Amino acid sequence: MNKIEHIGIAVKSLEASNDLFAKLFNAPHYKIEEVASEGVNTSFFQVGTNKIELLEATNPDSPIAKFIEKRGEGIHHIAFDVDDIEAEIKRLEAEGFTVLNRTPKKGADNKLVAFLHPKSTNGVLIELCQDIKE
Amino acid sequence: MNKIEHIGIAVKSLEASNDLFAKLFNAPHYKIEEVASEGVNTSFFQVGTNKIELLEATNPDSPIAKFIEKRGEGIHHIAFDVDDIEAEIKRLEAEGFTVLNRTPKKGADNKLVAFLHPKSTNGVLIELCQDIKE
Repeated sequence: MNKIEHIGIAVKSLEASNDLFAKLFNAPHYKIEEVASEGVNTSFFQVGTNKIELLEATNPDSPIAKFIEKRGEGIHHIAFDVDDIEAEIKRLEAEGFTVLNRTPKKGADNKLVAFLHPKSTNGVLIELCQDIKE
Repeated sequence: MNKIEHIGIAVKSLEASNDLFAKLFNAPHYKIEEVASEGVNTSFFQVGTNKIELLEATNPDSPIAKFIEKRGEGIHHIAFDVDDIEAEIKRLEAEGFTVLNRTPKKGADNKLVAFLHPKSTNGVLIELCQDIKE
């Protein structure tokens, strides 16, 4: 794993939180992107070589809506940048981690992504992500 | 803010979680440090230019013991690296954030640290940290 690619934060209102995090970082978000398959609207902030992704549910069945209902707003996941997501999935499964989607799927920000079940990682939802090379 | 300095993760057993995260990152922790004033034992993993800090309570009154009692193991805080922590505290207070300790205190890993109240930051406990120059 090369670095923390981003931290995902579940928020109720992307508009209100975009203002809040722009004040926090002293710089605005650099893009907004909907990931319809996950039922989320996202915005991204750059902090040095890392990013913060805000996640707002677009429907009541979205995993983000369920997260906020259960735990309130807050940190949802940590994403690590990897060079070869398929090799990393195999390595982690061999180490005993539970991979939620063994076939990487298209995520926000032009990435292939896979998630590890938080039960196998001390309650932390971990995303692996690899840049899609055009 | 220059980058994510580290992510703090609350764990029940530092020993068990050191093994788990060494498997996750394919590399062991590089140090263990007790912060007696906060009632925690910590370990650190390097992931590229970022770090992961595992936090284990050393007594039942530790903020980490209370966090785990309430929410279970999981992500506890995000720390951002800053050049001038006192200037950043002033800037953030002027923007309406609630700073928990307005006078920076000595944290783990040779840092001056200050925390923002999660009520002012969408439920996210944020730490500012500045290297102590010898």
